[in-house]
Amino acid sequence: MSTAINRHKGNFTWERTEVLKYKEDGSPFKDVTRQILFEGRPDLPCQLRYFEVSPGGHSTLERHEHVHAVMVARGSGKVLVGEEIVEAGPQDVIHVPPDTWHQFRAVNGEPFGFLCLVNCERDRPQLPNDTHLAELRRNPRIKDFIRV
Amino acid sequence: MSTAINRHKGNFTWERTEVLKYKEDGSPFKDVTRQILFEGRPDLPCQLRYFEVSPGGHSTLERHEHVHAVMVARGSGKVLVGEEIVEAGPQDVIHVPPDTWHQFRAVNGEPFGFLCLVNCERDRPQLPNDTHLAELRRNPRIKDFIRV
Repeated sequence: MSTAINRHKGNFTWERTEVLKYKEDGSPFKDVTRQILFEGRPDLPCQLRYFEVSPGGHSTLERHEHVHAVMVARGSGKVLVGEEIVEAGPQDVIHVPPDTWHQFRAVNGEPFGFLCLVNCERDRPQLPNDTHLAELRRNPRIKDFIRV
Repeated sequence: MSTAINRHKGNFTWERTEVLKYKEDGSPFKDVTRQILFEGRPDLPCQLRYFEVSPGGHSTLERHEHVHAVMVARGSGKVLVGEEIVEAGPQDVIHVPPDTWHQFRAVNGEPFGFLCLVNCERDRPQLPNDTHLAELRRNPRIKDFIRV
């Protein structure tokens, strides 16, 4: 088998990439998978992951110091980034700044798949506590959007 | 305008991304454009670029110490990676190791577009000299493939 290429098998799965649980730490989410397409190495210390949210599902509502550079690869959905809720579709690029609450939801009856670039060394995500949730819910659009 | 999202305008161009010349240093190539989708920053010091080779075009035949993590985003083509020539299509992931001759060619009558992840700090590519070319051309498949 070629060592240079990791072939797409169809349906956003790859020959040499395992479909993983999105999270194993008990964080709340619904119907999300994770695949690591590039692991990172000392001379390119970042990871490229592919996440896919099934229709009706959502990623964890969280924030952290590390940034995400995201590109939608499959389907469409809505994304909370700070105070904004954006509709996003194929090839849209999303920037999640440090310390910014964010959540991805597959609200359009189709899978919502996206590439997400992160630094290998990064802090652990923070979940919202009751105070954070009360703050977030002051904005009615965010109140309606978030899933916890 | 939203600061969180850089919308795909269609045809693999983006609202807030400029279509650039592939190279400005006189390296040989044919019909390739470059777009920088993520610039890199101190806490995520890598760049995500989108390159597109028009039908019949090719990237520079080169090598360097830094690695490339590539994902095909549009169309298909063939890629030289070291001793291998691989056919690549949408969502295929290609790894270009350090110090490895590589070239992307749009040989299938369609654009060949791919995301390419690199470290922000990286060495300059090396072009093949006559000795390198003679070595490369010892392999008849590579001899037929490469464009200089």
